[in-house]
Amino acid sequence: MKGTATVTEQLPPDVIAQLTGMGSAITPELVATSWALLKPFHDKVGYTAPKVDRDLAYGPHERHRLDVHAAGPESISAESGAPVFVFVHGGGFVGGDKHVPGTPMYDHIGAWAVRNGWVGVTITYRLAPEFTWPSGAEDVAAAVQWVRGNIAGYGGDPARIVVAGHSAGCVHVASYVAGQAGGDKDSGSLDGVKGAGLLSGFYQIPDGAERGELEVGYFGRRPAAEVNTLPGLLETPVPLVFAIAERDPQFSQGQIAALTAAWFAKKGTVPPVIWSEGHNHISQIGSVGVDDLALGAPLARFVNRVTQLSGGRPPVPPAQKGA
Amino acid sequence: MKGTATVTEQLPPDVIAQLTGMGSAITPELVATSWALLKPFHDKVGYTAPKVDRDLAYGPHERHRLDVHAAGPESISAESGAPVFVFVHGGGFVGGDKHVPGTPMYDHIGAWAVRNGWVGVTITYRLAPEFTWPSGAEDVAAAVQWVRGNIAGYGGDPARIVVAGHSAGCVHVASYVAGQAGGDKDSGSLDGVKGAGLLSGFYQIPDGAERGELEVGYFGRRPAAEVNTLPGLLETPVPLVFAIAERDPQFSQGQIAALTAAWFAKKGTVPPVIWSEGHNHISQIGSVGVDDLALGAPLARFVNRVTQLSGGRPPVPPAQKGA
Repeated sequence: MKGTATVTEQLPPDVIAQLTGMGSAITPELVATSWALLKPFHDKVGYTAPKVDRDLAYGPHERHRLDVHAAGPESISAESGAPVFVFVHGGGFVGGDKHVPGTPMYDHIGAWAVRNGWVGVTITYRLAPEFTWPSGAEDVAAAVQWVRGNIAGYGGDPARIVVAGHSAGCVHVASYVAGQAGGDKDSGSLDGVKGAGLLSGFYQIPDGAERGELEVGYFGRRPAAEVNTLPGLLETPVPLVFAIAERDPQFSQGQIAALTAAWFAKKGTVPPVIWSEGHNHISQIGSVGVDDLALGAPLARFVNRVTQLSGGRPPVPPAQKGA
Repeated sequence: MKGTATVTEQLPPDVIAQLTGMGSAITPELVATSWALLKPFHDKVGYTAPKVDRDLAYGPHERHRLDVHAAGPESISAESGAPVFVFVHGGGFVGGDKHVPGTPMYDHIGAWAVRNGWVGVTITYRLAPEFTWPSGAEDVAAAVQWVRGNIAGYGGDPARIVVAGHSAGCVHVASYVAGQAGGDKDSGSLDGVKGAGLLSGFYQIPDGAERGELEVGYFGRRPAAEVNTLPGLLETPVPLVFAIAERDPQFSQGQIAALTAAWFAKKGTVPPVIWSEGHNHISQIGSVGVDDLALGAPLARFVNRVTQLSGGRPPVPPAQKGA
């Protein structure tokens, strides 16, 4: 059925157990081992869309580049385009790339988007310490602007865009959605953005000595009140979905706990959160396309819903006392 | 792949939109309309397991009855049995039944369990106001005791039981897991219980005038501290998974918010919560077997994990400061 999320389940229980068993600290070993465990399954499923256009420039900097993943020319309809899924990678504000040749990173997200009937876009952005807040939000906004102007040529609908980010990429997407992408109206426009996926990032950071080195590199010593996105996320009309991995670090877990409290206080509901059973911070995003119940399928359900139903996800009705 | 959750997706977006659009108050109209919207899809998928044994007595009262749903004699292995999924229906402490003839209720849960390779057990229990706290927990414990003694004859493994409840049934399962099923050790034994699914129930109830009529009928005016299950759930070694529907009432939403805060404070992680996109309190449990991404598939993933991996879901390691 069109609009039904594809669900691929490849990982045997012992692989899940190994992923879970590494704990939650995001060490180089955890990153390398998680991808090494997942790669054979990605090789089997395949992680390359029929058509991939690489390194298209959406701005003047060498990191203003994006890849488009599509089904091929036959999928381009003159009448109406497909939803567009824009993905923003993580990397602690200082690293990462949309594409690491010879690995699934992050072509697997593009291929999964195409399998779901959408056009996939994976982007790269400027890095700290050279570029600081809100450069990430500005770059997400510029990439979305590029999508609005160019995606019809790939069969995509510029009026049905979902933007998602993982880890530092999540922070940038949240920052964009929360209106931090710059002063002039056009630079931060949310036109056509029907939803945002906020995957294992953060929405509040501490002030002072509690702020980590990576966060200081990107945010500097700006006050938390200036850079936090939680207030903006509570106000945005853009439908949101959040995700957290079972073995995400305590800092990320605390972000969801704080989000839940603030969201409930404001809206009388809990926020939409995908809890990725069995996964760590890295394998959660790596699971897309090979272990879709962890993240891919519920995220696809969200994308299908907000891009296919008129008006997107309906607003929450006035708070009611439950039975 | 054995142990892979089955995923059935039947509901078109307009049906989801109708379910969401009814709001969150659990009125008779919402109950009737939700089931009416779902029934054609259950009719199409089928909700009757190959073998159903009905009204087996697990205790002396007429409501001490359970139905067993199984694949049939050929599935019975002398060597090792299948996981057993025990389901406890809701009904506000004063109503409900394991089986309403001519409807999917709740044979659809049994059939879904069998499709996943397990044995399904649906139980009925004594009701308020005649029977009050902790009669529900006692009945769940007695039903599990029956399962331990009899399920091998249906191909089930008495050492791999998962118990789940919805709404008031969730309250009873939580009460059982939290150790409220009675004084003597055997009556509340958790032997063989590898996991519990707590679906849209509550774990803390208010004292005084804030306590609702249905809750007063079952709990009376016992102090919240005596009947609340949250402290016990934070301590139990039984792996848990929670669920909440997008349109669950504010009271239920607040339960997850409070659970999240308490769980994070104690464990440094957020609790495992399945957020059922697009569903209300009734359609969430009704979605199992026809819209599995909402609840069925992630719940099945949990069941497969806790019953197949040695030792069940691994414990959370000591809290770590995240990167």
